[in-house]
Amino acid sequence: MLELGLPDPVRDPDLPARVRIHEVGARDGLQNESSLVPVEVKVEFIARLADAGLRTVEATSFVHPNWVPQLADAEELMPRLAELLARYPGLRLPVLVPNERGLDRALAHHASEVAVFASATDTFARRNLNRSADEAMAMFRPVVERATAAGVPVRGYLSMCFGDPWEGPVPIAQVVRHGLTLLEMGCTELSLGDTIGVATPGQVKALIDEFTRSGVPVDQLAVHFHDTYGQALANTLAALRSGVTVVDASAGGLGGCPYAKSATGNLATEDLVWMLHGLGIETGVDLASLTETSGWMARQLGRPSPSRTVRALLGPTA
Amino acid sequence: MLELGLPDPVRDPDLPARVRIHEVGARDGLQNESSLVPVEVKVEFIARLADAGLRTVEATSFVHPNWVPQLADAEELMPRLAELLARYPGLRLPVLVPNERGLDRALAHHASEVAVFASATDTFARRNLNRSADEAMAMFRPVVERATAAGVPVRGYLSMCFGDPWEGPVPIAQVVRHGLTLLEMGCTELSLGDTIGVATPGQVKALIDEFTRSGVPVDQLAVHFHDTYGQALANTLAALRSGVTVVDASAGGLGGCPYAKSATGNLATEDLVWMLHGLGIETGVDLASLTETSGWMARQLGRPSPSRTVRALLGPTA
Repeated sequence: MLELGLPDPVRDPDLPARVRIHEVGARDGLQNESSLVPVEVKVEFIARLADAGLRTVEATSFVHPNWVPQLADAEELMPRLAELLARYPGLRLPVLVPNERGLDRALAHHASEVAVFASATDTFARRNLNRSADEAMAMFRPVVERATAAGVPVRGYLSMCFGDPWEGPVPIAQVVRHGLTLLEMGCTELSLGDTIGVATPGQVKALIDEFTRSGVPVDQLAVHFHDTYGQALANTLAALRSGVTVVDASAGGLGGCPYAKSATGNLATEDLVWMLHGLGIETGVDLASLTETSGWMARQLGRPSPSRTVRALLGPTA
Repeated sequence: MLELGLPDPVRDPDLPARVRIHEVGARDGLQNESSLVPVEVKVEFIARLADAGLRTVEATSFVHPNWVPQLADAEELMPRLAELLARYPGLRLPVLVPNERGLDRALAHHASEVAVFASATDTFARRNLNRSADEAMAMFRPVVERATAAGVPVRGYLSMCFGDPWEGPVPIAQVVRHGLTLLEMGCTELSLGDTIGVATPGQVKALIDEFTRSGVPVDQLAVHFHDTYGQALANTLAALRSGVTVVDASAGGLGGCPYAKSATGNLATEDLVWMLHGLGIETGVDLASLTETSGWMARQLGRPSPSRTVRALLGPTA
């Protein structure tokens, strides 16, 4: 068993006692991988993540196979995951759905939880979804309403909350307006994404505080930070201080935004867990087991993990 | 000129308005480089750092040349730096001195500021200095006293403040005792080092608060974090919240602790400046110019910068 060397935890009374990690490595992390990962490897990856104690593992996306060939095996993957749901009580395996057609496929495969991926800016909405941000919201509304009617909770991702590569800074009022729309149409959780990683802690606090001032309970908010400029963990700390208790992260730091200038992307789950456990914040995650899983996945992909913790614990080529 | 894409700053009233960066790239960053960097390159590096607005640039070490061959050119470097001191008002170019012999050499070359490198743990003191932590303090006392008598201020580095690779967690009382000794013998600034990068924000707050409770003015404290587990910037944020206004960092993330398991080491100055400027905290640093300097230095060393910001702005091979 891997020896961690994590010092004794020291609590900060202003931070939450427990954080739920929304693990995105199997979906967001893999979706931009050019070489196709076999479905057996994906099943084992998700099983190992569950085994390491993660209880929310985003599994795949019912996007059109032409858009994201890496996730074209969603139909094949879903029945393989049913056994995991039985084995790990409390395990949640949400899937992304881009539109009603995607929802139909997800429901046909008994998805118990789905997510939609909206944008706070028009330019990114047009590039990613081929319509304005408002038009994208109109497209998501029947998805959210039908899923909700079917008893399937919906997470709303809101991307480009702090900056957009084409538009630059994004006004808080615009982000809050789109976020409120997602919640009003029935999303049970709103994940605020810094898709290009430009945010710093003051912006994070300002945005979360503006949402709570608008009447959104803080436990409906999640944060999704990218480490493009190394800011993800400092931003997470600011979000926790503002009361957020759901944090998105990607095992081994897999994935990233194809529009960001650097390959560095998602906050690595291991770096997040190191901080949380050091702060005495419960996650339910076994960091040694998670790190070994990311080392194993890095070998499957044939390149080192960008997670600092994974490299520190397994060696720089892990 | 490099376009940064940093969003408009958002201040946090609990954080300081200004931070002084103690730039260690030219000394701590280069000291473990195996291929010798020509003195002309070092002069240009330090000049470019000053030109980017850094005003405390640790320049070299008067350690015995056999110990650190990379810095064996200290005598050659010093006269070349005199012109910089004249060109940039307020520029400080401290140098490390390991013992009295080193101090003699530094004073002979008109060093206006020096630093000693102590350890909070016995094991690291024995490995690094061949004596116990207390014996090392006894060795530093005449160095600090003689420098002070000569009108040369002394910075005290205290390493392994949060964990030691051989001893594990380090008791706060032990760290504070050694830190107070350095201040009591005359050091004007105490840099608290997380040499192996294991700390998390709760530990940082606890240690700084214990120093201030012991009567140390917070403006005598600096922090020196390593990014081994990705924690450096979150820890910096915690230190700023506890009132610290002096932060050590290394341009481009150069250097690291040879005893840490990973090559990842010092907090990159660019990642730090990104956060500080995003928080509206003044540093005097021109981030574009600094980033270009680190890109230039990476080319001199023949390998990419580990700084996330440098890679995001210049491309992953910068």
